[in-house]
Amino acid sequence: MLKLYDYLDSGNGYKIRLLLRQLQLPFEYVEKDILRGETRTPEFLARNPNGRIPVLELDDGSFIFESNAILWYLAEDTRFAPRSRRARAETLQWMFFEQYSHEPYVATPRFIVRHLAADHPRRQDLPRLLETGRAALAVMERHLKSRTFFVDERYGIADIALYAYTHVAEQGGHVLAPYPAVRAWLARVAAEPDYLALDAQP
Amino acid sequence: MLKLYDYLDSGNGYKIRLLLRQLQLPFEYVEKDILRGETRTPEFLARNPNGRIPVLELDDGSFIFESNAILWYLAEDTRFAPRSRRARAETLQWMFFEQYSHEPYVATPRFIVRHLAADHPRRQDLPRLLETGRAALAVMERHLKSRTFFVDERYGIADIALYAYTHVAEQGGHVLAPYPAVRAWLARVAAEPDYLALDAQP
Repeated sequence: MLKLYDYLDSGNGYKIRLLLRQLQLPFEYVEKDILRGETRTPEFLARNPNGRIPVLELDDGSFIFESNAILWYLAEDTRFAPRSRRARAETLQWMFFEQYSHEPYVATPRFIVRHLAADHPRRQDLPRLLETGRAALAVMERHLKSRTFFVDERYGIADIALYAYTHVAEQGGHVLAPYPAVRAWLARVAAEPDYLALDAQP
Repeated sequence: MLKLYDYLDSGNGYKIRLLLRQLQLPFEYVEKDILRGETRTPEFLARNPNGRIPVLELDDGSFIFESNAILWYLAEDTRFAPRSRRARAETLQWMFFEQYSHEPYVATPRFIVRHLAADHPRRQDLPRLLETGRAALAVMERHLKSRTFFVDERYGIADIALYAYTHVAEQGGHVLAPYPAVRAWLARVAAEPDYLALDAQP
């Protein structure tokens, strides 16, 4: 059976939990407390040398890390995968946008706000992170103004990748009111069959 | 003909130039000076709403952005693409690692050192960026100790993605001496047929 090493409050892990649910794939869930360094042990580094969740363990005992690579692996030949060379490129384009221009400025503020002490020095980074995050949200707004989903007007793994931290962006200090197209898209994703909430126990 | 919007000193753009050369694909090269804001004009934002090079314009006048998505698009059905579901996942795993855990800490110091003024406030970030970058280089070293290339012992787009900024990392203040497996891999990549230097005029 598939085994998912994960941390319940992680949006990167939630991407995998949501897709596994929508694919109706059974899996074993193994919680790793990232706040206690449980992903930096020698045992965990043998699974992912980069010391991060989520990690997917396959039936043969091998591992895949990086949330968006896991999404791609699980989605192949399913309705959640892009269906043309062009759609594959656009899907990856938005998934790389998510990891480079969105996650560090939408997920990281949420992590700082929720998990670091009130006097932690990284709180000084919040204004700069949130400013850059607003630019990422504006890019999404511009794209979604004339579209229902990110690629080919079909719900797929690019939507899952970007939904994960966008729908909880306000927990990190972002305000979504100025992005009506983003908010309408969030509602469409949440209305998909077999939707799962981020904090639902898998 | 393919058209590449790019900036010659960019490692992200170099990934595309190297693969286009190795694929023997002709293309038109359009230089955009990122230091003068040429990627933030309304005209350029219509190509990439995120305002960054590289952007690939296809024959039908449409655009793909994000360097690693462009690599994937160009490599499909060529010897540079992964050949199995597992290899596709591992290739993307390393490409997402590159954009999330490597590029911001290996490419960004190089940009600061080469392009920002001696008294620019972002120079304060250098020690922290270089420290995190060393962790990324250590992850690569661990993986390459027992391998010739990143995936399936074959040169491919995961190698191109990680080579681009690693081989010029010392220009940003990194020291590669402690990573012999990385250095041996850099030499293997540079020995591939139709290799192109980063600063070669396309």
